[in-house]
Amino acid sequence: MISGPFIAVDWGTTNRRAWRIEGGVVTAEERDGRGVTSVPANGWDAEVAGLRDRLGDHPMLLAGMVGSTIGWRAAPYVPAPAGLADLAAHWLAVDGRTVIVPGLSTLAGGRGDVMRGEEVQLLGAAAAGLTPGDALLCQPGTHCKWATMQDGRVAGFVTAMTGELFALLRGGGILAAQLAGEVNAGAAFEAGVAEGRRRDLPAALFGIRTAKLLGLRDDADASSYASGLLIGADVAARLAETPGATVHVLADPVLGGLYATAIHLCGGTAVAVDSHAAFIAGITRLGSFLP
Amino acid sequence: MISGPFIAVDWGTTNRRAWRIEGGVVTAEERDGRGVTSVPANGWDAEVAGLRDRLGDHPMLLAGMVGSTIGWRAAPYVPAPAGLADLAAHWLAVDGRTVIVPGLSTLAGGRGDVMRGEEVQLLGAAAAGLTPGDALLCQPGTHCKWATMQDGRVAGFVTAMTGELFALLRGGGILAAQLAGEVNAGAAFEAGVAEGRRRDLPAALFGIRTAKLLGLRDDADASSYASGLLIGADVAARLAETPGATVHVLADPVLGGLYATAIHLCGGTAVAVDSHAAFIAGITRLGSFLP
Repeated sequence: MISGPFIAVDWGTTNRRAWRIEGGVVTAEERDGRGVTSVPANGWDAEVAGLRDRLGDHPMLLAGMVGSTIGWRAAPYVPAPAGLADLAAHWLAVDGRTVIVPGLSTLAGGRGDVMRGEEVQLLGAAAAGLTPGDALLCQPGTHCKWATMQDGRVAGFVTAMTGELFALLRGGGILAAQLAGEVNAGAAFEAGVAEGRRRDLPAALFGIRTAKLLGLRDDADASSYASGLLIGADVAARLAETPGATVHVLADPVLGGLYATAIHLCGGTAVAVDSHAAFIAGITRLGSFLP
Repeated sequence: MISGPFIAVDWGTTNRRAWRIEGGVVTAEERDGRGVTSVPANGWDAEVAGLRDRLGDHPMLLAGMVGSTIGWRAAPYVPAPAGLADLAAHWLAVDGRTVIVPGLSTLAGGRGDVMRGEEVQLLGAAAAGLTPGDALLCQPGTHCKWATMQDGRVAGFVTAMTGELFALLRGGGILAAQLAGEVNAGAAFEAGVAEGRRRDLPAALFGIRTAKLLGLRDDADASSYASGLLIGADVAARLAETPGATVHVLADPVLGGLYATAIHLCGGTAVAVDSHAAFIAGITRLGSFLP
């Protein structure tokens, strides 16, 4: 395992988090809105130098969209099944002390899929014993990842653009005005999950409009219902492949709680996992592969 | 049946079509972009007077969103099952020679649904023998209507916002740049239908992004594939309720052809129906109820 300190960065599209890690412990941390889309093409050296100015002149591990075609350097996807050692074997060394963690790809089940950044959290969860080595993991969000883990490695995965669909419906079209309110757990969310389980989104979504026109539901509940509909459709499709599965959910308590409710209503069992601890566990173990 | 001429108007949200009908025959016609959202609150009398100036000083039947809360006057929905006589019995008379055709509502199957304007075409198709009295009818579009007809009346229906979902995905989000191209019938559309049948839109849509990143499909086919995905999910959900059904499709040849392909791939039989003739047949029969 690693002895010296290093810097770990989770560099996403719109946000960035960075940590100094020493002996497996976080000793400094920062987060900002300097996602990859805010960095000009000639600005990467300065960004990385800035991180070292603030967090120490240490080796650095960069994960997330920083390794995509819209990031600093493209680190090609590693095909699943893959574990932490595979990530380290294929990472992209920008220089002797700065490496970019590759994402994962899969072609299982006739569907292609990709992830970039989530793999550190998934593999960290298993490596640290936060989840079993063989398990179904879920990372809710704009692009919700569902990963099947085997022997602590990512065996396969599927991405559902559940959160993005909600954002698009809120941003325009016939439902936008109804979906301005906040999403809450409760009866309306659960009713949405029940409808979402029918996996008939094009019709179910129009039902939100109808409910307003016919006075079938308090329109203040429309956002919660819509969230339930989308999350329910996502969860139901996944649990159709593994009925009654236990799902380990890596998310903040609010979104994780909504997914847990939907998982229970769809016949599964949800277990909450500390997603931050999982990421730190994963990146720390990757750090041990640094020269 | 009616003897004298009358004016029929299909007054939608963004478009308007109007016809002078004499003895069941169209003798004059106009179409423009004066949908209800372009008419100011105090502009309705002038719009109607303008129609009579151009098409003749005749009785007038108005159908579509003109009878909604965003139209001229709200004509309350008539609950299904309903036929032409029910529409006439509940239409809203603005004055002795100007009436607004009400829309339909349904609460069948635990889902509420509404339509406004499409009912004239559906009932006209059955009344004119363009479709059987007992049949499944489909009106593709932004909000695709699927109506179950019994004895020539609308027994129940469901709306799928298939076209609107496509427009939202084209208008923003991670897939927008890929979906700028036109939709064509062919292998990519059919591959989309095959995936859409799995009724797993949140994941299947992300697959469009993945296919580009992994080079799995010519990105010029992304629009056709996405259209197939959405239409396939719509059709599959409907045919799941009536496997192998014959679907009478009322649409222009292009969109109608795409739906016909999806219906065939989902195990049904598609029959194309002249949607314009159906509307004229319906509005002409409603005209016979004019005083």
